[in-house]
Amino acid sequence: MGEFDLIERFFKRPVRRAALGVGDDCALLQPAPGMHLAVSSDMLVEGRHFLSTVDPRALGHKALAVNLSDLAACGAKPLAFTLALALPSADAAWLGPFSEGLLALADAHGCELVGGDTTRGPLNICITVFGEVPRGQALLRSGAQAGDDIYVSGTVGDARLALEVFRGQLAMPQEVFTQARARMEQPTPRVALGLALRGVATAAVDVSDGLLGDLGHVLKASGLGARIEAAAAQRLMGCADAPLSPAQRLDFALAGGDDYELAFTAPPSARGQVKGAVAHAQVQVTRIGSTTAEPGVRVVDAQGQPLEQRFGSFDHFG
Amino acid sequence: MGEFDLIERFFKRPVRRAALGVGDDCALLQPAPGMHLAVSSDMLVEGRHFLSTVDPRALGHKALAVNLSDLAACGAKPLAFTLALALPSADAAWLGPFSEGLLALADAHGCELVGGDTTRGPLNICITVFGEVPRGQALLRSGAQAGDDIYVSGTVGDARLALEVFRGQLAMPQEVFTQARARMEQPTPRVALGLALRGVATAAVDVSDGLLGDLGHVLKASGLGARIEAAAAQRLMGCADAPLSPAQRLDFALAGGDDYELAFTAPPSARGQVKGAVAHAQVQVTRIGSTTAEPGVRVVDAQGQPLEQRFGSFDHFG
Repeated sequence: MGEFDLIERFFKRPVRRAALGVGDDCALLQPAPGMHLAVSSDMLVEGRHFLSTVDPRALGHKALAVNLSDLAACGAKPLAFTLALALPSADAAWLGPFSEGLLALADAHGCELVGGDTTRGPLNICITVFGEVPRGQALLRSGAQAGDDIYVSGTVGDARLALEVFRGQLAMPQEVFTQARARMEQPTPRVALGLALRGVATAAVDVSDGLLGDLGHVLKASGLGARIEAAAAQRLMGCADAPLSPAQRLDFALAGGDDYELAFTAPPSARGQVKGAVAHAQVQVTRIGSTTAEPGVRVVDAQGQPLEQRFGSFDHFG
Repeated sequence: MGEFDLIERFFKRPVRRAALGVGDDCALLQPAPGMHLAVSSDMLVEGRHFLSTVDPRALGHKALAVNLSDLAACGAKPLAFTLALALPSADAAWLGPFSEGLLALADAHGCELVGGDTTRGPLNICITVFGEVPRGQALLRSGAQAGDDIYVSGTVGDARLALEVFRGQLAMPQEVFTQARARMEQPTPRVALGLALRGVATAAVDVSDGLLGDLGHVLKASGLGARIEAAAAQRLMGCADAPLSPAQRLDFALAGGDDYELAFTAPPSARGQVKGAVAHAQVQVTRIGSTTAEPGVRVVDAQGQPLEQRFGSFDHFG
């Protein structure tokens, strides 16, 4: 199977919205008038972002999900994406389920594959995604105000729990591992929530490298600090049946990584609007604290006393 | 050096034209009214697209050049690009010249780095480039008409000559090798020519996998065949001093690969306009034959007799 057959067989589909899709030197996109085009690229490498044993269908899903999560964090509606793929060989038994997982998620979000590249090489998946957002309505990292509430969608820390089990660092009952593994391998991008938060959230970020680290980008860009309630943060971790101490739950929640949830800020006066957005998007969110004019992040106990604990963030070169 | 330091140090620059550049979840682009956004992605892998010994400055140049060449083939004006980079380590001695080579070419074309991703992994460079083209004016592969002239810009075959010398398949005098190597490592994207050919060329394609193979995409998309004059095609090869037979020159020119020139078609009635476009873009082009209603490609000698020779195209999975 040659390069062009491979594209034809697994990835070429009728173009619907783009002016020109797969099969020319460029794809042509036409954002609607008054719209900004939001663009994000993520590269997934074997051993860093997924294990060699992963189901290719789940990997196809995840490769696009992590990109859609970036659009969600900007409040952008998915439009299209390009896929560049380095493969050790053109293996139909792998490409079939990979493309199915990828395109099923793409279809669910009306996000069209418009172009890309394939080459032989160590497995590497690079997706660039395009979305549209009305001019001036993108959710940025820099918009948080002192005293804003801090919210996190869904659950965080579970993907990291699965990774630690895979690494043999932790043992978990099978049903806990299955639940955690699904969160690691098939994250759910919070696209509907991102759209519902336009005009409501003051800032938002995609939680991919660990909650505190990613929240730190919002705080830095907005010139703020934060006060996080440990009790609320502990509740962010899913896998309720996992035999973990409260301190471990806090650790996984605040510095897990690979979560693809949204962290966002909104003023206390907007709590009703946040509730409405959350109901509309049909996703749970947890209020975990608030931003402070004073820089730095303090994680506090039920008595308001700072915990000593230090939390890291995942850094690919750290 | 961590991931964010790396981005900050080598790749973060003031944003000029994009609404929002490096440092949020997404970049925001705003194409001008009436413009289509042209998008292309290329992935470069060590050992396939470049040798491990390549000067990182040349590699930075080439990684963007091959993408700009796709924009050129669509007649699109470069606007912005994203860079996703997998690196074995965060090596400043490599990243410094790589980013300089990359950004020098970006600056020369007013093409802004707006986002991307970095991760640890086998060296892999994935760039997605964005350009703009007035609606309806993009140069497509599908627009050629029977009887159109076929043109090729610059020289082709030289990069392949250098590769054969690197592989030990051929020996060349040092000055020939130096010249060929420069063509392999620092291709010149024909952006000005692509812009000048808007409204002149009926179809265009980027020559990256070998002239006949890439021209074949135009012929297939346009439902045509072609008649190529061997004598003209032999003149496409640069490296005039290379000790090669006429048959070898033809071989390198027609099936070399890694050229990043433009092949395009235009009716004989537009020869004056082609001449004007070429003069404006300050690049040489060679007319090598014409398209035919009859399918298939015939390479003919000075007497119009078809040559027996068969020419391939580079296929990453062939």
